[in-house]
Formats: sequence, structure tokens, C-alpha cells
Amino acid sequence: MATASSKRTRVRRVPARGVYERDSIEAILDATLVSHIGFVADGQPYVIPTLHARIDDTLYVHGSAASRMLRVLEKGADVCVTATLVDGLVLARSAFHHSINYRSVVVLGEARLVAPEAERLRALELFTEKLVPGRWAEVRSPSKQELKGSKVLALSLDEASAKVRSGPPVDDEPDYDLPVWAGVVPLATEVGAPEPDPRLDPATPVPEHVASWRP
Amino acid sequence: MATASSKRTRVRRVPARGVYERDSIEAILDATLVSHIGFVADGQPYVIPTLHARIDDTLYVHGSAASRMLRVLEKGADVCVTATLVDGLVLARSAFHHSINYRSVVVLGEARLVAPEAERLRALELFTEKLVPGRWAEVRSPSKQELKGSKVLALSLDEASAKVRSGPPVDDEPDYDLPVWAGVVPLATEVGAPEPDPRLDPATPVPEHVASWRP
Repeated sequence: MATASSKRTRVRRVPARGVYERDSIEAILDATLVSHIGFVADGQPYVIPTLHARIDDTLYVHGSAASRMLRVLEKGADVCVTATLVDGLVLARSAFHHSINYRSVVVLGEARLVAPEAERLRALELFTEKLVPGRWAEVRSPSKQELKGSKVLALSLDEASAKVRSGPPVDDEPDYDLPVWAGVVPLATEVGAPEPDPRLDPATPVPEHVASWRP
Repeated sequence: MATASSKRTRVRRVPARGVYERDSIEAILDATLVSHIGFVADGQPYVIPTLHARIDDTLYVHGSAASRMLRVLEKGADVCVTATLVDGLVLARSAFHHSINYRSVVVLGEARLVAPEAERLRALELFTEKLVPGRWAEVRSPSKQELKGSKVLALSLDEASAKVRSGPPVDDEPDYDLPVWAGVVPLATEVGAPEPDPRLDPATPVPEHVASWRP
């Protein structure tokens, strides 16, 4: 089993749930649609939901979701990006041992505002393809002006860790005799039927990359 | 429309998405299973997924998820709790206007470690009932020792705001003529069939409060 890349990312609560393998960390980041980015402004922590996308050991975060952060960032700000998937309700025989099954990743580091236009274009492609694979080739590409207005943050995955809980509840030994149903209620993402834009020509078929989309 | 309770909670990016009505804020918090709590330790922001539950204008957060925070908290720490629901993929005709439909709440304030045993017990009941309504009456109540070991944080909802995006994509006017499918892919939580604990007596029926659980 791999070890924590830093003292700061070592999982302290329930250490057995800590996962430090790069593959596991990447898989969780790739499977999560929305992450939460934390930063400090005027001493106050802020946590903002944002889209992210990963390539190799770089995590890109959509800067527009956290514009308050940009003035902080120019000074080189420490951030924390956390991505969490909820896999189920864990129903124990005692109230105390109720929990959830989840997979989460915490990435710490200094975010960098992506300056090169080519890298920003690449990040926009990654965001679009992360949302719906196959979409980038179908839609209008960013104009010069849109690219200029796009804020993208980059963060290295050097300091990252994952935490995973899976499986049935863990009850105190005497409680296993209680006549209480215990187990897991699995949760996943349900994908509804695509809803065409009201301004779309009704003759436009739902393309394969949309119809077959799964999380 | 209500206004922001403070300058810090005013929605700055896309102000039209800001929602400050208490009812809307409470509804989003109540509908969200997991939130993300942000705090600062040694100058570094941390964002940790956690369970939360609300009663009136108090938000309770499960302290065990953020034990690193406890030593910070004893000095009276500022936190940010953010709860986000993802409602859909917003697929525009241009890459730039892709988005997601979501509802999120940001709560700022000084978290208080809940000391009175009665309030901690009440919070554990809220957490359990939030996970699965009707569960608290079915399971073993917390022992004196469990209650002693439970860390619960409380946060006032005085400084809170919501941000909501809903509806179809908004494209640049000329792009509406492009032959590109556009619309929304709705996302929701899918509930799987309950999985009994392997150590459960197979004769134990799935109780109604579990079988009928919906997010």
C-alpha cells in the first residue's frame, strides 16, 4: 500500500480508510463531476463547488466559479480541492455506527492561474469532454474572446490522498443479536431522458454521445 | 427577493443566480446528504466531506469528520459549510456555454463545539433521522460512552446564501442556428435495492422506513 505524500494529506480519522495509490486517486477524481475548492480570503475560508478535469498529474479547476479567489491567487494561494462520491447509506443496528459509503479525494497545493492560451484551450476541452465525452468535436469551439475571458486554475496532484468507506455496517459485537435490519442502501447517479432546449429544432435527433451518457 | 445577509455571502459571479430566501436555503440543506466543511489550519485551507443536519436556524455538522479542526475550533474558528446538489448537465451549442444545473448553499460563521450532552444527543438523532427518517426509533440509542465520544459542531444560519442554476442552456444568439443538439441531461439520485448485512438473519424483512427511502 502506498503511503501519504505528506503529513498534511495523511488520513488521521480512521487511518485504515486512507488510500494513497495514485491510480485510486485519479479514478475518484475522474468519476466525480463536481468538486469543492477551498481557499482563504481575509482570514475566512470559502468552499465553492466547481467543475474539475484531470490530465496526468495536473488537476484543472474552472476559475469562474471562484472569482473571489483570483485576487487571492495572484499572490500564490494555497487551496484544497475535495471531490466526493456518495455510494450508499450504511445502516447499523446502533445509531452511533450509522455512516455512509463514499470515496473522496483531497488535493492540497498552490493553485496556479493558467496563463498560456494553448493550455487554457486544452483545459476547456478537458472540461467539456469530462462533462460529456465526444462533445468537444460537436460544438462550436471557443472564440478568441471567450478564451480570453476563461479563467482556469491548475493544481499538481503531488499532495493528494483518498479516503474510502465501503461494505456493510460495523456494529458492536453484542448488537449483532438485536432484531434490527442492518445493511447498505446503494446510491448512484440516475440519468434522466435528455430534455431538448425549447429553441431546438424538434427534428434534431439526440446524438449518440448524449443518449449513451453515463456517469 | 431577499437580499444577502452580509457582503461576504453576496453572490458575485452571475448575481442573478443568488438566492437569499431562508426557505430556499433550508430546503437545499435538507435535501443534501453530504456537505463540505472548510477550515484553516496552519494557514492551509482544508475541505472535508461531512454529514450535516439542520433544525430551525442551526446547522449541525458531524465533528468526527474533521477532527483536525477540533484543535483549531477551540480557539473559535471560522468555517464555511457548502452543500451542493447537481441537477443536470447543461449542453450548449458552444463549448464555452456548457454548464451544470445545480443548487448550492454556502454557510459562513464561527463553529461552536456542542458541549451540552442533551444537545449532542438531539444532534445525533437529527443526523440519524436525516439519513433515514424513522430510523432513530428502530435502532439502539447512543450509550453514555458513545455520547461522550461524539463530536458535534453547530453553526448559525445567519450568514448563508444559495446559488441556483436551472433551465436550458443559454447560447449566444447566432449559435442558435447551429445544427447542434442542445438541452439538459437531468441527473438525480438512484436508490438501489437494500443490501442486507451478511451477518443479518435472512428472515429479517426490510422495514418500511428502509424500503421506501427516497432522497
